[in-house]
Order: sequence, then C-alpha cells, then structure tokens
Amino acid sequence: MEVERITSRKSPVVRDAASLLQKAEKRSEAGLFMAEGARLCADAARSGTEIAVCFYTETAEKKYGEYLRPVIRTAEQTYCIAEHIAPLLSDTKHPQGIFCVCKIPHNLPEARAAARVLVLENVQDPANMGTILRTAEALGVLCIALVGACCDIFSPKVVRGSMGAVFRLHFERYVRAEDCADALGRRGLTALATVPDDRAVPITEIPFETGRWAVWIGNEGNGLTEAALAVCAQRVTIPMRGRAESFNASTAAAIVLWEMMRKVKEGDADHG
Amino acid sequence: MEVERITSRKSPVVRDAASLLQKAEKRSEAGLFMAEGARLCADAARSGTEIAVCFYTETAEKKYGEYLRPVIRTAEQTYCIAEHIAPLLSDTKHPQGIFCVCKIPHNLPEARAAARVLVLENVQDPANMGTILRTAEALGVLCIALVGACCDIFSPKVVRGSMGAVFRLHFERYVRAEDCADALGRRGLTALATVPDDRAVPITEIPFETGRWAVWIGNEGNGLTEAALAVCAQRVTIPMRGRAESFNASTAAAIVLWEMMRKVKEGDADHG
Repeated sequence: MEVERITSRKSPVVRDAASLLQKAEKRSEAGLFMAEGARLCADAARSGTEIAVCFYTETAEKKYGEYLRPVIRTAEQTYCIAEHIAPLLSDTKHPQGIFCVCKIPHNLPEARAAARVLVLENVQDPANMGTILRTAEALGVLCIALVGACCDIFSPKVVRGSMGAVFRLHFERYVRAEDCADALGRRGLTALATVPDDRAVPITEIPFETGRWAVWIGNEGNGLTEAALAVCAQRVTIPMRGRAESFNASTAAAIVLWEMMRKVKEGDADHG
Repeated sequence: MEVERITSRKSPVVRDAASLLQKAEKRSEAGLFMAEGARLCADAARSGTEIAVCFYTETAEKKYGEYLRPVIRTAEQTYCIAEHIAPLLSDTKHPQGIFCVCKIPHNLPEARAAARVLVLENVQDPANMGTILRTAEALGVLCIALVGACCDIFSPKVVRGSMGAVFRLHFERYVRAEDCADALGRRGLTALATVPDDRAVPITEIPFETGRWAVWIGNEGNGLTEAALAVCAQRVTIPMRGRAESFNASTAAAIVLWEMMRKVKEGDADHG
C-alpha cells in the first residue's frame, strides 16, 4: 500500500490535527481528539476506538512496528510524516512519532445499566483527572458522570494520564448537580458525597456489596459544592489520623472506589 | 519588635534562601529547606519544625496575619521583604509572600519502633512523592524508608504536595534495597513487594491486623527493581479488572496503605 508522505509544516491535515491539541471546543466541534505514543495508539485500536487518521515517522515505524501495524489497519487515513513534523502533533517533549486522530465515542446506552457510577464534580486538574480515570477502570467502575466545570477528558494530558482508560470508559455529562442526581436517581443509584469531615459516615460502614451507588468526588481545592452536597443522600468519609486535613482528590477517589469494589464480588463488575 | 527590611535583590540572606529552592545537594549540605505559603509555614511552626528564617511581605502580613504570627514567634530571624523580592524566594507562579527557611529534622530514634513502614524505591516524580507522603500521614503510616534514587523530599514541590506531611513524618534513607531490608528485618518487619502481577497474593489476604509490615512501592514506570523483589518476603498485588495494566504509584500506595490501616484497630496507629 502506498502511504502518502507529508513534509510540509503547512499541510492542512497536520494543522487540523494539531489544532485538536489545544482547545476543548475544537475537539468537541470536530468530535475528534488526539492520542500519541506507540502503546497508547495501539491501545486505541485494540479498544475499538474509531481512528480517523494515523501519522507516523519512519523512525517510529522501525522502532515501534509491532504497535503501529494494528493502528494502520484500523485508521481511515494514514500518513508518513517527516521527523520535523512530529513536534507539531505532540504534547510531549520527546514524541515517539506515532499519532492518532480518534473519534470521540458516543455514549452507549448499556452503560446506563451500571450499578456503580463515579461522579466527578469540577475536577479541574488534568493530571488528577487522568489518574482518577485510570484507577476507576482498573477497579472496574466503568461509568463516569462529569458534573459542572470538569477539565476536558479528551485533552492530550488526560488521555495519556488515563493510560487509555478514556477509550473504554463511558461518560455522561451534566451541567448541574441536580440534573445528575435526578438522572442517576431514576436509575436507582444512591448518591454518596465524599467529604473530609469526621462526622460523616466512614466508608467502611457503607454496604457497597448490595444496592446501587453513585460515589461523588469534588474539586481538588474546594471539595463538593453546596448544590452537590444537597442532592446526595449521604455524606461519607475516609477516616483520617493525625494532623492531615484531607486527601488529594485522586487518592480519595482511589480509596473509596477500592473500598466499594472490594466488597463487590469478583466477576460482578459492571461491563455495561 | 523592630523587623529588618530587605529591598535589595542582592541581599545575601535572600540569595542563600533562594539557593535552597534549586538543588538537593544545597539543601543537604546546609541542612535547610524552604517552605512557602501562609498555611504551610504556619503548619511548619505548629509541627515543631525549627524555623531558621521567616520572610514576609507587607501585603502578606495584612492578608495572612493570623497564619504569620506563630511563624514569626518561632523563627530565629525574621525579615520584611519588598514585594519584588518575593518571586526570588518562590517556586510558584503566584507567591503569597510568606516563606520559611526550615531545618531538616533529625530522625527520631522512636520512629524505629514503628510496626508499619512504607518503603519507596526510586520514586522520582515530586508530585507523586508529595501525594504519597500526604496519604501516608493521613492513614497513620508515619515512618517512610527511601531507597535508591528517590527525588528529594525537601524540594519545594514535594513539601507543598505533601501538605506539610514532610514536617511530621520520619524518614530513613538507604542506598541499596538489601540494606533497607536488613535494617527493617532486624526490627521484625516483614517486607511486602507491591507488584502489578495477578499471580501475587491479593492485598486483601494479608493479615495486616497482626504482625509488623514494610510495604514496598517501586518506581512510577518500572516498578520495583530485581534487587528489591529479591529481598522482599512476599509479592502482593491489588486485584485489577479489565484491560488496565497497573495503577499509578501514588494510587497503588494509597490502596495498599488504606487496606493495611483499615485492618489495624483505631487508636493503634504508630505515633513513633
């Protein structure tokens, strides 16, 4: 197969792809986002993410051929780019030279059957967001509700930090906490607000093994909003010792999700 | 009390303090490190950290007087600095204008009695390190062993990310994994290597509630070294689901420490 070569920085396909690195609005309008790196692009292909365009350098083809081949098989268009083009498509200091323009997946209706949902309100730091999504997937919590002003989950940093979890998780979006609580409430989920407050119910006392649960985690600095606290059925907390005042948002999410999934039998995870 | 004012960028006290922001060697030679921000400096004072110098701007004095007063009471020297000096002493984009030069604490012999130790091998990312230390303190694991090439725990980013946990935790340092295992072994601790390997023992099966434990966590990208794996008594793992291959190092630490401390009775934490 003849692969078209791109050597000009002014190539419109390169410019279009590069524009997806910057703004959430661009990605949202186009319905596209960027993934980079051999493993991450191979992961996109393996996860069934639709790949609109694959770009690779000759160096990358030699070094990462094994990762690249399934990506090229899946991609609608493929371009071999000159080495000096790679930095234009990259969000990292040392690009590996493999890039994908991926289609933002549609939400699958089956995800609505999930018995366990992680709700993130105003989580704004891309590093935290990526870590939280990676953790949620690893623990088997596959449905994520984003409330308010969360950072864009398809930004390059979140995509990388999630280690590909964004390709496989199901996302729902809500502007207002009330709307999220209403929607999840209709699906029979009980909303738990995670708070750093030792008067709240310790997470060890929640019967996660029965019932359906929506675990709410708030903003890194400010926690959950009053609006979110008002719509949650219960406030839960991770018991702390000593002088510590709170956990990092991604740590809190990890501990609560672990505690929930620990109590849920093996093989009982949501694969909706 | 008359407080000396500093308006010159060339002030030797400012230069000396600023040099502590850069290199671990500088901090180690001087036995000093920097903390900045109203809450963090107040936390240093409250935690009994010895404060050699306090710097503050007039703006900060007005805005954060409540935090500043205990710091000034504790500090051996205090300077009021002109606003344009603050950025020289800061590691952040928007300094609050309160800075402390703190003395690196000596290790306390009582820490050696700790029944639970977190061992970090080659943890290199300051953000990860800060988060791990914050989590360890909040869960009541107060003794931390640093093995190999960990990042400096007194770098400005770790101090901030730890939310002051570095003021209160006890640290021991080992160049080689063997030396750490020997030392902790003599104190009766069983070494557990945390690995992303589903053939290892699930952490839920470890009887953390009895016995004395050293939990080993490895480098972000490469995990524990062969040398570390060889000296650990057992390999343990956090059961994962789906396609995820591993957890972030700080997430893995959070889940294992949580699981350990969940099983240890309330009030039974190490305060050594």
